[in-house]
Amino acid sequence: MARDRLIYLPLGGAGEIGMNAYVYGYGPEGAERLILVDLGIAFPDMDSTPGVDVILPDISWLTDKLDRLEAVFITHAHEDHVGGVGHLSPHLKTPIHARKFTANLARRKLAEKGQDVGLVKTAHPWPAQIEAGPFKVGFLPVSHSIPESAALVIDTPAGRIIHSGDFKIDRTPVVGEPFDDALWAEVARGGVRALVCDSTNVFSKHPGRSEAEVKPNLEPLVKSAKGMFVATTFASNVARLQSLAKAGEAAGRSICLMGRAMRRMTEAAVEEGILTDFPKTISPEDAASVPRENLMLIVTGSQGERRAASAQLSRGKYFGMELKDGDTFLFSSKTIPGNERDVAIIMNNLSELGVDVVTEADGLYHVSGHANRPDLETVHQLVDPQIVIPMHGEHRHLREHAKLADRLGRVGVLAPNGTMVDLAGNQPEVVDHVETGRTYLDGSELVGQFDGVVRDRLRMALNGHAVVAVMVDDDDEVLEDTWVDLRGLPEMDKGGPLADRMEDYLARQLARIDTRTAGDDEKLEDLIIKGVRKVAQDEVGKRPEVTVLITRLAAE
Amino acid sequence: MARDRLIYLPLGGAGEIGMNAYVYGYGPEGAERLILVDLGIAFPDMDSTPGVDVILPDISWLTDKLDRLEAVFITHAHEDHVGGVGHLSPHLKTPIHARKFTANLARRKLAEKGQDVGLVKTAHPWPAQIEAGPFKVGFLPVSHSIPESAALVIDTPAGRIIHSGDFKIDRTPVVGEPFDDALWAEVARGGVRALVCDSTNVFSKHPGRSEAEVKPNLEPLVKSAKGMFVATTFASNVARLQSLAKAGEAAGRSICLMGRAMRRMTEAAVEEGILTDFPKTISPEDAASVPRENLMLIVTGSQGERRAASAQLSRGKYFGMELKDGDTFLFSSKTIPGNERDVAIIMNNLSELGVDVVTEADGLYHVSGHANRPDLETVHQLVDPQIVIPMHGEHRHLREHAKLADRLGRVGVLAPNGTMVDLAGNQPEVVDHVETGRTYLDGSELVGQFDGVVRDRLRMALNGHAVVAVMVDDDDEVLEDTWVDLRGLPEMDKGGPLADRMEDYLARQLARIDTRTAGDDEKLEDLIIKGVRKVAQDEVGKRPEVTVLITRLAAE
Repeated sequence: MARDRLIYLPLGGAGEIGMNAYVYGYGPEGAERLILVDLGIAFPDMDSTPGVDVILPDISWLTDKLDRLEAVFITHAHEDHVGGVGHLSPHLKTPIHARKFTANLARRKLAEKGQDVGLVKTAHPWPAQIEAGPFKVGFLPVSHSIPESAALVIDTPAGRIIHSGDFKIDRTPVVGEPFDDALWAEVARGGVRALVCDSTNVFSKHPGRSEAEVKPNLEPLVKSAKGMFVATTFASNVARLQSLAKAGEAAGRSICLMGRAMRRMTEAAVEEGILTDFPKTISPEDAASVPRENLMLIVTGSQGERRAASAQLSRGKYFGMELKDGDTFLFSSKTIPGNERDVAIIMNNLSELGVDVVTEADGLYHVSGHANRPDLETVHQLVDPQIVIPMHGEHRHLREHAKLADRLGRVGVLAPNGTMVDLAGNQPEVVDHVETGRTYLDGSELVGQFDGVVRDRLRMALNGHAVVAVMVDDDDEVLEDTWVDLRGLPEMDKGGPLADRMEDYLARQLARIDTRTAGDDEKLEDLIIKGVRKVAQDEVGKRPEVTVLITRLAAE
Repeated sequence: MARDRLIYLPLGGAGEIGMNAYVYGYGPEGAERLILVDLGIAFPDMDSTPGVDVILPDISWLTDKLDRLEAVFITHAHEDHVGGVGHLSPHLKTPIHARKFTANLARRKLAEKGQDVGLVKTAHPWPAQIEAGPFKVGFLPVSHSIPESAALVIDTPAGRIIHSGDFKIDRTPVVGEPFDDALWAEVARGGVRALVCDSTNVFSKHPGRSEAEVKPNLEPLVKSAKGMFVATTFASNVARLQSLAKAGEAAGRSICLMGRAMRRMTEAAVEEGILTDFPKTISPEDAASVPRENLMLIVTGSQGERRAASAQLSRGKYFGMELKDGDTFLFSSKTIPGNERDVAIIMNNLSELGVDVVTEADGLYHVSGHANRPDLETVHQLVDPQIVIPMHGEHRHLREHAKLADRLGRVGVLAPNGTMVDLAGNQPEVVDHVETGRTYLDGSELVGQFDGVVRDRLRMALNGHAVVAVMVDDDDEVLEDTWVDLRGLPEMDKGGPLADRMEDYLARQLARIDTRTAGDDEKLEDLIIKGVRKVAQDEVGKRPEVTVLITRLAAE
């Protein structure tokens, strides 16, 4: 009889930063009992996913095997780890385990979608363990940029796995649990088969800095500001919110939180007993009557999101607040790669208003939530696993991290999304490649990455769209009044209206065709598409998308 | 009689990094004689300008006053300064002055468009001066990241202006002219009314570094590489190309240039006597037979451009070259903000091929071509103008630079695009605000920013496009066979094909309307658009763009 396998299979997160979803399985080949770690989302962009609301991992490999799925475990409450539960948990129908702060936010997501919040089970931290088929899973507290982050200690018959989740080594995290070297050492003591490890900052060569380093820089900045002081950061960074609010309080300012995520996060943190001495806040309505030099806003939208509070404030009045010459706006955040342009738009808007913008450029007002390269080395050594599997990174991050593991004398495994690795044997072995991809939430529909819906939108965005309506009578003669309508194409060229020129060209062409062509939808459509594209190319140098509507008139 | 005015009016470049175009004028109000400095382009992106080929400044203010335009002066051959000459010079019909390398490239642009290359006049450097109406203009050599960059010394009856162009203080630029402090001091000696000055790097606090610092880092890197060595940089950075090629030569590698811009730039530099000892290069065809460890490719596409050599090589075979495990790829360039995502795609593709990617992250393999903040201070002091007008920057750069000028005891003028400043009086005075904007080259057409063409494309990209064809008979009765065709919308929802459901809905609606509605195109269209959007919103949560084609059948 073949031995049981211990499989690792990333469905998302290993090849991108976003939409984390990692499967572990144990049992005979093809009959492994399964657990899923994290169920996150990624965010759309105009370059590849215009109009898409949310990007989810394609979990069809898993939904085909629901009878084998024991449970879902969520490491922490960032959207790229928990954001998918509202959209996908109806497809999984399985308990979702998370620590209390994360569970609080996961339940809100299910409630928003009208789903059963009872699916979410609150987990106690290590040494508590949850049995899930052949697995025993413990939530090992770890420092990150959100409260109650956890690594997972996954005990299996083939040994212990530590799945790091997102983490940094922070011994003074301001709010929540410090990184506990002794606890990690204890968990590692019996030997660890594999460390599955965050790779985000593998290219950052300096040791990471503590959240506590930010606070002393904030106070003098806020104190020296003259007008209104506005700060934006990631709403989930509750420690930072507290540091900002306390700096405001120390400067004699009233604190007002703006933005839905900001209120949701602080609410959850208060409900779960994590935030205990957050300064008193006032509502935007009350803030309007506070002199601006006595006011501090803490707002959402540090990544330039167009509907969030930062962007709204940069464009004008928002909830009665209006920024002006002499105010200060602090980005207590880094710009995630890809968001530079949107953030710059806000900074320039603020500049036009005369607002002084302060950024994290000098490293004073922000620290990262992920372990840098030296910290990764520390954790490799502390856990001392046989195998290191880099996750949570683009391909280049995973590759660099695997090389680092090799260099430190362990077996580094490069396993991007879809790579099934068996960890039960003497050496890790890639045993399968599974098709993975992205599912788009588009409006209220889940649309596959290759369904063509988004591709068509991209093509219309690049090329414009010409629509042609043509009528054919019951003798297969094309009637004369062919109609062309253009969207997203220059309407006039030197020769006059472009649509008119297309109609003229088609009229000449269609007058010449035989009834065999006119009687065949496909041939007729093909001819019209070619004709429209030829005129567009000749006249305005574009090759539009073309839709042809052929109406065949029946004999009366 | 009113005194003459000396006006400064940026039409592009002051409020963005790109499409530089600065007007100077001298004379009585409304009758000033004019010159234009630079005529550049900006590059489109999917966020705001999908499908656009090139973005040009809207120069209609100037084309309305062609009888007053004396000449165009181009400071250097970067696309954001010279890129517009092929597209816009037919509208200007005026001589274009530039130094020989810049003129060479400007002539190529005119020739490509079949235009008169005789418009381009080769200018000698300072102390030569060109008379243009009331102006005398001299090309003052300055170091930058392209050969023969020049500041312009613009002498007017109201005093001397120095228009810096793009520059850095580089006393060892590898190729071309070093920054010449003595020459600048000499030009400034008689007093300078205004310094109009590059603002790109005003937020960079450390002194700029010399091009010569890159070369010694390249040699050991190339020597230590095992497989093929590929380097990308800005094609126009001829000094860098030479440093790269020499490092390759020193490592015993044959040099092959790939990419059109790379060949165009080196050709122009050789023709104009700027590159005199560039190592011998081989063609891609010959390179294919060179062992990979003896080969170095220098390629275009450092900004992730999808059709350039870097992107092509990262995706597979290109001109017979194919990268593989053990090769090295160097980005000897910085990523311009906004291009991060495209560059990351290439890096990840290369990582998948097993190629080691080296970046400028540690500052070893790239230096900027623009003056940093301390260098700007040096130049303010060296030129000692009465007025400093920041240009070449986003609003936040201009504002910061103006504040810097104020702090150093001069008059800083914040003058974004469209701000007309009179420099002839005791104090600079904003005398007008002119409408400026962007013109899109879309295919072969020039399209205005607010013409709606690109806006329609963006809307289709975000919302999808539904097309409805409906026929109305000569009694104003809507015929039954209404047809709906969808692009970029989820085609199926839980209830079946979406287009069918729209057709059913419309059929029910249209059966109920009176002939007054059916007889009125606008009312009928409005009804159909609302109906289609309602079904789309209810069924799939989207609000598509809708095009309605109404065909009215005439009585036979």
